[in-house]
Amino acid sequence: MPVYVAKCVGTEQKLGFIIMSIGTYKEIEGGVTVAKGYVANALACGIKKPTATRLDLALVYSTLPTTSSGTFTTNRVRAACVRVSQNHLRRGNVRAVVANSGNANACTGADGVAVARKECSIVAKELGLKPSEVAVCSTGVIGLPMPMVRIEPRLPELCQNLSAEKGHDVASAIITSDTREKEVAVEVEINGQIVRIGSCCKGAGMIAPCMATMICLVCTDAAVKREDLDNIVKDGVSKTFNRITIDGDMSTNDTCLVMANGASGVELAPGTPGWETFVEALHYVLMEQAKRIVQDGERVTKFVTVQVEGAPSAAEAKRVAEGVAKSALVKSSWNGGDPNWGRIIHAVGYSGMRVKEEKVDIDIAGLPACRGGVQTDTPSDDLRERVQAREFVVRINLNLGSHEYVVYTTDLSPEYVDFNRSEYAYWNQAKQDGLTR
Amino acid sequence: MPVYVAKCVGTEQKLGFIIMSIGTYKEIEGGVTVAKGYVANALACGIKKPTATRLDLALVYSTLPTTSSGTFTTNRVRAACVRVSQNHLRRGNVRAVVANSGNANACTGADGVAVARKECSIVAKELGLKPSEVAVCSTGVIGLPMPMVRIEPRLPELCQNLSAEKGHDVASAIITSDTREKEVAVEVEINGQIVRIGSCCKGAGMIAPCMATMICLVCTDAAVKREDLDNIVKDGVSKTFNRITIDGDMSTNDTCLVMANGASGVELAPGTPGWETFVEALHYVLMEQAKRIVQDGERVTKFVTVQVEGAPSAAEAKRVAEGVAKSALVKSSWNGGDPNWGRIIHAVGYSGMRVKEEKVDIDIAGLPACRGGVQTDTPSDDLRERVQAREFVVRINLNLGSHEYVVYTTDLSPEYVDFNRSEYAYWNQAKQDGLTR
Repeated sequence: MPVYVAKCVGTEQKLGFIIMSIGTYKEIEGGVTVAKGYVANALACGIKKPTATRLDLALVYSTLPTTSSGTFTTNRVRAACVRVSQNHLRRGNVRAVVANSGNANACTGADGVAVARKECSIVAKELGLKPSEVAVCSTGVIGLPMPMVRIEPRLPELCQNLSAEKGHDVASAIITSDTREKEVAVEVEINGQIVRIGSCCKGAGMIAPCMATMICLVCTDAAVKREDLDNIVKDGVSKTFNRITIDGDMSTNDTCLVMANGASGVELAPGTPGWETFVEALHYVLMEQAKRIVQDGERVTKFVTVQVEGAPSAAEAKRVAEGVAKSALVKSSWNGGDPNWGRIIHAVGYSGMRVKEEKVDIDIAGLPACRGGVQTDTPSDDLRERVQAREFVVRINLNLGSHEYVVYTTDLSPEYVDFNRSEYAYWNQAKQDGLTR
Repeated sequence: MPVYVAKCVGTEQKLGFIIMSIGTYKEIEGGVTVAKGYVANALACGIKKPTATRLDLALVYSTLPTTSSGTFTTNRVRAACVRVSQNHLRRGNVRAVVANSGNANACTGADGVAVARKECSIVAKELGLKPSEVAVCSTGVIGLPMPMVRIEPRLPELCQNLSAEKGHDVASAIITSDTREKEVAVEVEINGQIVRIGSCCKGAGMIAPCMATMICLVCTDAAVKREDLDNIVKDGVSKTFNRITIDGDMSTNDTCLVMANGASGVELAPGTPGWETFVEALHYVLMEQAKRIVQDGERVTKFVTVQVEGAPSAAEAKRVAEGVAKSALVKSSWNGGDPNWGRIIHAVGYSGMRVKEEKVDIDIAGLPACRGGVQTDTPSDDLRERVQAREFVVRINLNLGSHEYVVYTTDLSPEYVDFNRSEYAYWNQAKQDGLTR
């Protein structure tokens, strides 16, 4: 059932914008092929192991030229697919994305880069593109060479029978052990014209026995200049995907790719009618996907919003929020439904940022838990009851300034640790494949 | 059985030192009262809960004036006892330490500071000291007021019947759920004269359902100037306690206190015979205690030494080592006996330090696991067999410089998370005590 999120940006802007920025957007069903001019396909290649039957190799292709933008992990250890995709985006725009699960093609050296390039060149040949017009994403275990013996022969087939009906298959092919596919799409109406943005996503550390890998593919039929697209994607990602953490481990493969092919006939740029609405709609897609990554962890039981306010600078607000969201003891307490503000304030204190203990206020799920660094009158039973809920907000006011930051995160459960104890099965399979000793 | 660790510093120094620095040291039995002129006592006060029978309040007292030094948590949220002890050490030297378990007296506001001061002034009165000559340490849950109703009436009794036989009782009184007391002592021989250094310690995050709190008390009968003592304690702690991490959470209460009372008649200073040996012996005590903290976690199954080499700077070596030692996914893999070098290199990569993936070498338990950022020929079964051991070394060479750093750490187990899920019992008791709502 579509969720209608009608919003008139114009009424919330300054007078100068009311005439300029008009439009509404609403969430709709669908994924990467919901916008005009995008087709897709997916296959089951047995990448993780030959007997696997699930979809694990996918292609998304724009029938029209695009502008495109991407953001990638800042881990200095970057997967081969990330290196190749970054290189292609520096040289121009991409019109196709080939993605796989089952292997991250990371820490695979020059061979891994050659494999990633080969995927792109085979796909390019099939689609009549230049290799640099193809991006490549992989997700799975790090350090094992890709089983090209099971991938390469299928690439031509992947590029045939492309269809706008197969967006969901792409979403299926890229997930590892997410509990469900993650598709988010919106329809934007501007002056009677329609623009759509569709996406699929997979992530994160919690739910894969592999790495913490986030991949998000976004396809829109708006026409947006490359420079403008780069700006809003960078900004959007910084406010969404970069504000989630599950276990604090940043993948070698994190990738967000956005393509805009103009198939809607609607040209958008800063200053044109509907631009603000489009940016908001894109932000909505990214934010929704980011939240789903956090919420969908199989071994996760809580979705916690950590809100820091009153920080002396933006950077400090961020560091404090991240410190709290990554503290093993804080997250363990959330798992236990224990509203332990003492652990929260201790994590605030070791963030290394300017903090005055006697000024710190903490609310948990809307109730005051700490004022001026000490306990409040709130009955601990009331606090405890609130944190039995799956979702709640932790608000931390440093009372030292006006800067804010928000991080979305989870608890830490014994099951997470148990789930991540061993990737023995992967290495065993890789030995059988002759890819490792 | 004493462990004899004979070492002649002279032979390892440059020629100029051979004549100057002579002496040997060996490990001996005992704790804080093993050196001359130190006496102690401990009581069971039911601090955690009235019915508790274990020792939980302790006193160590030097019958002679001392020079003393202390290092404390750098968490900007500091327990009341830390604030008071720091203040007293700034004003002069301390001759007595009153310590308790069962409550951290942290995030307790002005009342907490008043409580800490009161402990010091009552003890001072009993012993004929100035209040500023008394230091105070607490360990336990954060945020709950100290149950002074059970502590204050016992302080006079604590200061009576002091004895050199009760060092072990102090070690017992400060532990929370450490599996055993931690006492380390050494005897140093310099030119036929004897100096002893005794210590007890408790820690760390893993083993307490409370905070990650490390407390170490060190008592020596050497005569050392305050300035010299400050220097070697600061340096010693930076190379030992500051290089351990269990769960990455820095306590609000971490404290290392060292007293030197000269009762041996041996005066030591930089340049005097035996100085180097004394410094090494002190370092040995601190290092042993730091290792025991890491090894003794009840829910810990591994003791891992993370060695970073070849870093472009000292600060970067430190950050890379700490990043690896704190990664949830890396630590989980250790728990599973999984030699997952891919996760290790990913943590190296997100440390934010200068790293060139293609130069990174990783050895696990002495076997090459990664060379130049990719897998080696080492059979994965061999690697796996090595990490079944309880202790092993992970060596990471960045091959970008010559700086090194070492961190001692543990695995992350499901049991750790389970153990730290809830401090409900503490809060319930505090409610009964009328100390919280």
